[in-house]
Amino acid sequence: MPVLEQDRIIESLQAATSEVFSTMLPISIETTKSYVEKSSAEPVDGVVALVGFTGPWVGTGSISCSATLACRLCAVLLMTEAEAVNDEVLDAVGEVANMIIGNYKTHIESYVGDLGLSIPTVIYGKNFTARSLNTSEWVAIEFNCEGEPLHIKVCMTPNPDSKASARPTGINSAAVVA
Amino acid sequence: MPVLEQDRIIESLQAATSEVFSTMLPISIETTKSYVEKSSAEPVDGVVALVGFTGPWVGTGSISCSATLACRLCAVLLMTEAEAVNDEVLDAVGEVANMIIGNYKTHIESYVGDLGLSIPTVIYGKNFTARSLNTSEWVAIEFNCEGEPLHIKVCMTPNPDSKASARPTGINSAAVVA
Repeated sequence: MPVLEQDRIIESLQAATSEVFSTMLPISIETTKSYVEKSSAEPVDGVVALVGFTGPWVGTGSISCSATLACRLCAVLLMTEAEAVNDEVLDAVGEVANMIIGNYKTHIESYVGDLGLSIPTVIYGKNFTARSLNTSEWVAIEFNCEGEPLHIKVCMTPNPDSKASARPTGINSAAVVA
Repeated sequence: MPVLEQDRIIESLQAATSEVFSTMLPISIETTKSYVEKSSAEPVDGVVALVGFTGPWVGTGSISCSATLACRLCAVLLMTEAEAVNDEVLDAVGEVANMIIGNYKTHIESYVGDLGLSIPTVIYGKNFTARSLNTSEWVAIEFNCEGEPLHIKVCMTPNPDSKASARPTGINSAAVVA
């Protein structure tokens, strides 16, 4: 099973995000920092879109931002102005996640093999917790998007049995190496 | 592309849930009702675990319950008492989702072909919204689990292009028929 270096994940996420913004989202965006985050259940505010990976590697990709930026992404992508987060805003953020994480998947498949991508789920609230099972570490990039932070993250771990109908607990994600 | 009848989804969800509870979770559980829910962004309270399907059909499976029942599931599954929702409780609910939706996947694969299953994401909060992109309808069962409601739901739609890296918007899920 190949290892997946953090640098390769960051490079692929960066490229995937730049490509989607330059072709689909005419908004200024610049990278603030890349970082590694331990899996935790810290409460967050705002909008989070999650997409699952399946196949030889399993995991999750996410994008998260403030309600303000979510409304702005909706205005640019769907040409629909929204003053507050509504169904269309959630769908717009889900579609941005679909494009960016889908593009990241294409980049990373040459290293890890063909992957499946689930339908995005988008969460909105104040002071909620979102936790992925069996993941210890997220590789993340923070972008500055017209003054608002946009966080794009992935956690991936080799699938111990891609034919199993359910994965056992305690998957070790240490195969993502620095 | 085969259709997937609501009755078959309900039957498979029912069987999958019964099997997991009877073998892994010594708690009394009984079916209250089955129903179909339109996709909406109604805010909810409590714990929700989501698992994605990939392959010839794409979609999401979810289980949702109160914080009280989440703590009880943790006590029974992990032998860990918790007075409030913590990381272990979230992991326990994620693992229950993994087992039930994984088991459902095995039941349904004989009709729709081999599917991939993503890692569960578990959300906890008050007054948050969780919305899946491109889904119009959830098929659901409500169970009564020691006096607390437990909702188990799936939405599935044929994958218009299982080789595509990202799915287009506006997938019609009307292929799930009554």
